[in-house]
Amino acid sequence: MNKNIVTIGGGTGSFTLLSGLKEYPVNISAIVSMVDDGGSTGVLRDELGVLPPGDVRQCLVALSDSSEILRILLNYRFENGGLKGHSFGNLFLSALEKITGNFTEGVKETAKILNIKGEVIPVIDRSANLFLQLNNGKLIKGEEQINHNFDIQRIGIKKIYLYPKLKANKEAIRVILKADLIIIGPGNHYCSVIPNFLAKGIPKAIRASKAKIILNCNLVNKKGHTDNFNLDDYVDSINNYIGAKRINFVTFNTKKPDKKLIEKYENQKELLIGFNELARKKRNYQIIRADILSDKKVKYSNVDALAHQRAFIRHDSDKLAKILMMILELGDYKNIIKEII
Amino acid sequence: MNKNIVTIGGGTGSFTLLSGLKEYPVNISAIVSMVDDGGSTGVLRDELGVLPPGDVRQCLVALSDSSEILRILLNYRFENGGLKGHSFGNLFLSALEKITGNFTEGVKETAKILNIKGEVIPVIDRSANLFLQLNNGKLIKGEEQINHNFDIQRIGIKKIYLYPKLKANKEAIRVILKADLIIIGPGNHYCSVIPNFLAKGIPKAIRASKAKIILNCNLVNKKGHTDNFNLDDYVDSINNYIGAKRINFVTFNTKKPDKKLIEKYENQKELLIGFNELARKKRNYQIIRADILSDKKVKYSNVDALAHQRAFIRHDSDKLAKILMMILELGDYKNIIKEII
Repeated sequence: MNKNIVTIGGGTGSFTLLSGLKEYPVNISAIVSMVDDGGSTGVLRDELGVLPPGDVRQCLVALSDSSEILRILLNYRFENGGLKGHSFGNLFLSALEKITGNFTEGVKETAKILNIKGEVIPVIDRSANLFLQLNNGKLIKGEEQINHNFDIQRIGIKKIYLYPKLKANKEAIRVILKADLIIIGPGNHYCSVIPNFLAKGIPKAIRASKAKIILNCNLVNKKGHTDNFNLDDYVDSINNYIGAKRINFVTFNTKKPDKKLIEKYENQKELLIGFNELARKKRNYQIIRADILSDKKVKYSNVDALAHQRAFIRHDSDKLAKILMMILELGDYKNIIKEII
Repeated sequence: MNKNIVTIGGGTGSFTLLSGLKEYPVNISAIVSMVDDGGSTGVLRDELGVLPPGDVRQCLVALSDSSEILRILLNYRFENGGLKGHSFGNLFLSALEKITGNFTEGVKETAKILNIKGEVIPVIDRSANLFLQLNNGKLIKGEEQINHNFDIQRIGIKKIYLYPKLKANKEAIRVILKADLIIIGPGNHYCSVIPNFLAKGIPKAIRASKAKIILNCNLVNKKGHTDNFNLDDYVDSINNYIGAKRINFVTFNTKKPDKKLIEKYENQKELLIGFNELARKKRNYQIIRADILSDKKVKYSNVDALAHQRAFIRHDSDKLAKILMMILELGDYKNIIKEII
């Protein structure tokens, strides 16, 4: 019987991950964060009172087995007039939410139309926003504001939470409890990954699940958010939100990106993530080192111009999926290392 | 081999006609007028520079064999904010026009996604507007303005034309020339039906075609446009644009609508269309009298609220299609009359 794989994330990171995974004979359930409040999604939330469709859309497109043109259509953004900036796929999901009266139902109908492999599960099925309180007491309201705040690491986080505090979608709990493998990330740490763990019930379900848990470590730190994070800091942070040392594996890219690209990122104070092998304490998770870097220059350009701008240094869908499938099959480090080296 | 049927019209009339026809084993090509410049369509033309998608959308939905929810989605209208009034299906067609770079190509892709039976052919494949010059010299610019002008019959039409003057879509010419049956209307006479005959090449193709030609006579006259028209006036008007007495059959509804409904229309100066049997000159077309009136109260309400408001007294899709298929099969009046009575 096919293994049950649950992914947890949002946005472009999930798009990359799922695009690769869908080629394998596994049951995929993609749990997606639901706190986006910027851009097209933000306007739709404000004006139509719908749930944020953007992250879900990217996952649906990644898993879709429909025609290339339908996939392109779903990611198309209008360029002029009152529709400017709106992603067609966001309008698609919002219209279906209005018609069915329920976002999760709308997602299911879209999934049928797109003939997707697996399922996409919004982590919450009612509207909530992300709030972050800094150690100096300042409250940052909304994902968009948090994303563009560069004082977060410097001042420190007192509290990050959803408001209203919502229970997780029951479907999300269900798939976590029967998962063989849970894959976290890659993705914007505080804006895409962590919000999933803030939905009531998700940490408990992960603690209770018998699944192996893999973290896809990001490639680049985010300025003002995770500037000094090394690999272990990401693991600790996520384990902290799970409430247990549950992460079993971490995938880590060993292929150096193009020098010019590294410089470009460094100029924006975004540094490659690493870890100091010698200075590390002993840990209870295994690091899977491999070349999982994309060398495709314009992979997303015809699908989503924004995604392309966002991440030049990014994971390769196929390489990443291959490594993850090895972990699923082999299940322990020594065998994996033999396969990879 | 299945017979080739070409319909000529636009808007709700074509929706009604095609919804019935698609149940029969015939090849349907729906030629659609392309001069709409009001509402959602008008905004899209202005802001995105696309061709008018509204009439084509209705035909695609009518012929679609996809899920009910996809059909509802295509006709869904947003109710708030910057998207207010936009039909989702219009956005669908406009986005595909932008992606493929060509409206006709976009229509073909939508047709595939909707799994439509037959084909929908925009009568022109570049942008043009409808102009109407009155006998007093006044020029009315655009379909929306013409539609809302109530002096047209009173003052009289000097000229009605497309600007720029465009050649018809080659596909439209092709299907007319190989048609077994051409069905014109029902529909708004000057705003939906006649504009098809203004595209260069359409009248000539119809004159050259060996097809039988049926006019579905409208049920109600339009205030300020065709107030005093009887059945023969409609035939004469359309034959005039064709440039020959080509119409062979006219379907005419014999079922009286509900009294209250008639009063409601009469209060708005819209009268049922008739003809004076005794006073008529001899004509070279046959009138097919039958009950083709819809007695469904809210047929379109869940599909398109606007269509519902537009036409309470309207054709019944199934009854109309049945009569048309009889004409196709039997081909002459005496046999048809036996079947109907």
